[in-house]
Amino acid sequence: MLNGMNRQIILASRPSGEPKPENFRLVETAIPELNDGQVLLQTLFLSLDPYMRGRMSASKSYAQPVEIGGVMEGGAVSRVVLSRRPGFEVGDIVQGRTGWQSHAVSDGTATSAPLQRVDPTIAPISTALGVLGMPGMTAYTGLLNIGQPKAGETLVVAAASGPVGSLVAQIGRLKGCRVVGIAGGADKVRYLREELGVDVALDHKAPDFAAQLAAACPKGIDIYFENVGGHVWEAVFPLLNDFARVPVCGLIAHYNDEGALPGPDRLPMTMRAVLSRRLTLRGFIVSDFAAQAADFRRDVAAWLHAGKIKYKEDIVHGLEKAPEAFIGLLKGQNFGKLVVKVAD
Amino acid sequence: MLNGMNRQIILASRPSGEPKPENFRLVETAIPELNDGQVLLQTLFLSLDPYMRGRMSASKSYAQPVEIGGVMEGGAVSRVVLSRRPGFEVGDIVQGRTGWQSHAVSDGTATSAPLQRVDPTIAPISTALGVLGMPGMTAYTGLLNIGQPKAGETLVVAAASGPVGSLVAQIGRLKGCRVVGIAGGADKVRYLREELGVDVALDHKAPDFAAQLAAACPKGIDIYFENVGGHVWEAVFPLLNDFARVPVCGLIAHYNDEGALPGPDRLPMTMRAVLSRRLTLRGFIVSDFAAQAADFRRDVAAWLHAGKIKYKEDIVHGLEKAPEAFIGLLKGQNFGKLVVKVAD
Repeated sequence: MLNGMNRQIILASRPSGEPKPENFRLVETAIPELNDGQVLLQTLFLSLDPYMRGRMSASKSYAQPVEIGGVMEGGAVSRVVLSRRPGFEVGDIVQGRTGWQSHAVSDGTATSAPLQRVDPTIAPISTALGVLGMPGMTAYTGLLNIGQPKAGETLVVAAASGPVGSLVAQIGRLKGCRVVGIAGGADKVRYLREELGVDVALDHKAPDFAAQLAAACPKGIDIYFENVGGHVWEAVFPLLNDFARVPVCGLIAHYNDEGALPGPDRLPMTMRAVLSRRLTLRGFIVSDFAAQAADFRRDVAAWLHAGKIKYKEDIVHGLEKAPEAFIGLLKGQNFGKLVVKVAD
Repeated sequence: MLNGMNRQIILASRPSGEPKPENFRLVETAIPELNDGQVLLQTLFLSLDPYMRGRMSASKSYAQPVEIGGVMEGGAVSRVVLSRRPGFEVGDIVQGRTGWQSHAVSDGTATSAPLQRVDPTIAPISTALGVLGMPGMTAYTGLLNIGQPKAGETLVVAAASGPVGSLVAQIGRLKGCRVVGIAGGADKVRYLREELGVDVALDHKAPDFAAQLAAACPKGIDIYFENVGGHVWEAVFPLLNDFARVPVCGLIAHYNDEGALPGPDRLPMTMRAVLSRRLTLRGFIVSDFAAQAADFRRDVAAWLHAGKIKYKEDIVHGLEKAPEAFIGLLKGQNFGKLVVKVAD
């Protein structure tokens, strides 16, 4: 292993609109010698998440973009295969922001990639990238802090079969909300209804989706967990009740937007509704609630253990498949948390 | 007085865009006999406020519209001139939502017009419509609950010479914020600088206003108290810091908007900024914080008494002047809290 090569997927060029395969390139580089204090990690599972689209663009969002030629960023679960760092033993399973590559050298403390131990006895280790990881904590903190669900309220969740939405929907149910889950396609809608137990499951691809949503929310919408934007927002917006809360978690429908969009300009009308209906629109990123990590892990592990929540993974095999899988993710082609199995 | 006539200003027709004088009509009606439990009020001061534009339109906002032929809604300070209600004596000064008219009959308890006693020893009674009334409480509750000012933060206040904005600016200073006040015209800007003591006062009519605002906010904007919209929002938006709070109190630039506005559509870009900069946009109405009325009156009366805050009134004489003054208010022609002196 030490004498092997590191396979990396780098950002070859910045996408214009939708990312294409040629924006990525697979390269092989030598694995460097370890210095004292470092560990060599072998990637087992790589997480693919919508936020990575932002890192491919030159403009700074809440984080710096990936440089052209740089390794694509991402969280991964890895095995320690060589250690010159006290406290890390060969065979340990860890999670960190080590990127789209088969191996990574880490000192375990870098702020960009602090390593966290993964306990394989709690749940399959890939869940450290999903229901027990960043997406799960995004759902938990965004819903509880900003959504502030109360029993009897109507909660609408977009992308409800995905790793964030599915946990939002289930926590909403546990808090006593009427939950309307939205997904794209019959299989996902069936999963929402039969597996996650939402009150109403809707397909946003249906031609009469907006009418279906209105019928599913006879008392309006108190919380809309926004992670898509686009035409789902269009259907949700007129239904928002006075004092509705909108945690803005993601806007996957807009990540490929370029330049000015055609009118009409909906901003003034939206702001008037914010005023007259006293809406709260609040963006957040999981790291804003880092102080709640222990609460999150305790609660979600307990719910998992008690069988109160379920999760679904969409596993792709082979690092080389990551670009294609990521491009599909932005089109909603994944079904469940998308992870790449990089090694056994 | 009892045998006199009641002069009323009614909504003659709904405006299309800017209200015009012909949308209002002055009528005289007989003052009805009082029933047991009622008081007859003589209006002394009538408040004119931007929210009234919303009541002139047919569409429901947070309150029902005024009917065609109905008396224009509004708060007023009045004197009890006849009382068949225990606890109300002739000569008492009260405040209530009694509308654009010279007289009103009230039972003192209607939810739409509960009468509150005004203590003439605290401050001039007209302040019950301004700094010690609805506009003052709007400023106090919106800034403290939603803006959450912290010492050292930058607070930008639009319409800062108005009754809401001027108190927001002054409370912001008391809380240790760097306050940038915006108003229209040299006189108002001078007032902000010389009387209210804001850190920077800017004229939004200046051709390089956006550049001036950027220069005035070298560390960005942490709180923007929104009560205008339009080009002021345009200049503020790019300067909003991560975690900025935007209490949405009013949108006077848009109250006359009709139908779809020309593109580009700024909504998706705005929502992306809400996400990436974790902005909070939250609308509110003063009645949402009704439970804080006693806190408001205590604090603002104490600040007034200690000379820590100032207020300015723009007094128009005669009920018949109310329509013209209101039309001017929507164009920013008032300077300070606009009240109509209806009787001595």
